[in-house]
Amino acid sequence: MAQTLALGIDIGGTNTSFGIVDRRGQIITKGKMSTLGYPTVAEYIAALKKEVDVLIEAVGRENIVAAGVGAPNGNYYTGEIVHAANLEWEGVIPLARLLKEALHFEVTITNDANAAALGEMMYGTAKGMKDFIVVTLGTGVGSGFVANGQLIYGHDGFAGELGHVIALREGRVCGCGRRGCMERYCSATGVVITAEEWLDERNDPSILRQHKGKITAKLIHEAAEQGDALALEIFDYTAKILGQTLADAVAITSPQAIIFFGGLARAGKLLLGPVQKHMEDNLLRIYKNKIAILPSDLPDADAAILGASALAW
Amino acid sequence: MAQTLALGIDIGGTNTSFGIVDRRGQIITKGKMSTLGYPTVAEYIAALKKEVDVLIEAVGRENIVAAGVGAPNGNYYTGEIVHAANLEWEGVIPLARLLKEALHFEVTITNDANAAALGEMMYGTAKGMKDFIVVTLGTGVGSGFVANGQLIYGHDGFAGELGHVIALREGRVCGCGRRGCMERYCSATGVVITAEEWLDERNDPSILRQHKGKITAKLIHEAAEQGDALALEIFDYTAKILGQTLADAVAITSPQAIIFFGGLARAGKLLLGPVQKHMEDNLLRIYKNKIAILPSDLPDADAAILGASALAW
Repeated sequence: MAQTLALGIDIGGTNTSFGIVDRRGQIITKGKMSTLGYPTVAEYIAALKKEVDVLIEAVGRENIVAAGVGAPNGNYYTGEIVHAANLEWEGVIPLARLLKEALHFEVTITNDANAAALGEMMYGTAKGMKDFIVVTLGTGVGSGFVANGQLIYGHDGFAGELGHVIALREGRVCGCGRRGCMERYCSATGVVITAEEWLDERNDPSILRQHKGKITAKLIHEAAEQGDALALEIFDYTAKILGQTLADAVAITSPQAIIFFGGLARAGKLLLGPVQKHMEDNLLRIYKNKIAILPSDLPDADAAILGASALAW
Repeated sequence: MAQTLALGIDIGGTNTSFGIVDRRGQIITKGKMSTLGYPTVAEYIAALKKEVDVLIEAVGRENIVAAGVGAPNGNYYTGEIVHAANLEWEGVIPLARLLKEALHFEVTITNDANAAALGEMMYGTAKGMKDFIVVTLGTGVGSGFVANGQLIYGHDGFAGELGHVIALREGRVCGCGRRGCMERYCSATGVVITAEEWLDERNDPSILRQHKGKITAKLIHEAAEQGDALALEIFDYTAKILGQTLADAVAITSPQAIIFFGGLARAGKLLLGPVQKHMEDNLLRIYKNKIAILPSDLPDADAAILGASALAW
């Protein structure tokens, strides 16, 4: 039997998703584990190998052509993860080599958001688009930029760090060591910081008060759905910073659409409506009313798994 | 004889340059006229035709294959100039069609900075590079982004408006109708505004005081060359805003180099030295000490003429 399957692995700041995918983009089987709790990358890879091997044996090792990996700061050219602010392991990690030794497949890696953009382009909302941006609103904010139908890797493989555009000079301290990065406001982590800060500083009533100190993005989303004024204001504040940053990014690549996924994107219209409004308010005239703000139509982590697996072919 | 020559026209906010170029990128003959002082685009095109026809007759009309034009907000896909803040003519101008009717050649247009980027890639500092940014510091600030060896036109042909990234929220009013655009600080126009403002607000001595009310970018450059503290501070302030904006753009496309040309770029190290420092100070760690800040090595308007002519082939 020919090798007709690829292994896709998406390493997020919180969870790692993996799946075995056929050439048409069908996920045959998939799984998930925590990314957290492994002091060394060797321990993490041992745990990942154990999980993935079960799937591999189920479909037949001989049917798998190779593996693709999406990871924070994953470098397409070198196969390394370099200084990823949202991972527990510091420094430069030769992830492609380590995984190849563990799994005995060829392994190609890229930025997790770049992998998601490939998945959206081949199987998702961006099918047929040549110029678009994928923004992942998870533990951090990732992005993949596609222009002329090609992913922008940049000279060194590190393009697409929209989450680390400075949104507020002298703003919140970021895991990257600088201040005011967009992801400190617009990620799942960022909205929680905003909520906790506002609950401290302000006295207006909110469903969220009862969860003070234990706020999650999901709780804010649920409160917003119930019409909680503070939660809606948190979303509007988040959307303003995201919309302003996107308006500037549009001035660089002029995309047809901006596609959102990740935990926080599940808030849908409640968040993306205000994002569209604030982006339009800040756009240069030539870009106004042209750019679609769309949620991913791939369920949850599938876009990332599909994109990662696409690297393998 | 075969058609071996192309006509390149660069329409700047102040001047229009044009030249006839061979396939190797040699400019056979060239000329220049003011862009200003033509109330209607028809009058401007009549004047341009008169100038260009002299050059065309000199090399033989039958030898020219077509014309390429770089113009503010020039759209590669539609052949139009749309709402160009730095030109006197408002609204949508079907420039490619009007020029074709006047000159009787096929005419392709793009953004003047995109044309410059093509010129740099084929004949200039960016020869052999696949990922770089060209920044033009003229009446406004233009830019051309190249990724994967291809110019980024964007979905609608309007990509690369780095000058209209918002550098200072609630900053100076821009010709585009918004506030705080980078070009209101970092263009030749921008540094003059900074100088006049500071001469009004401050009392420290400066060679520039004698020119108050009639400051030009050239005067500031000359004062900086003579070590004038105020002029050097103006350059450092300008470089800080430019460096911060570039650091954010790097996070999107991760270029190998950023290449500068246009009037203000003639200040060379006096301006580009501080630009490099401020960019590095603001870069995400993974991009530090990787990106070359380079002046164009094509004389003056040649890059734009060469780039525009390259569109014709």
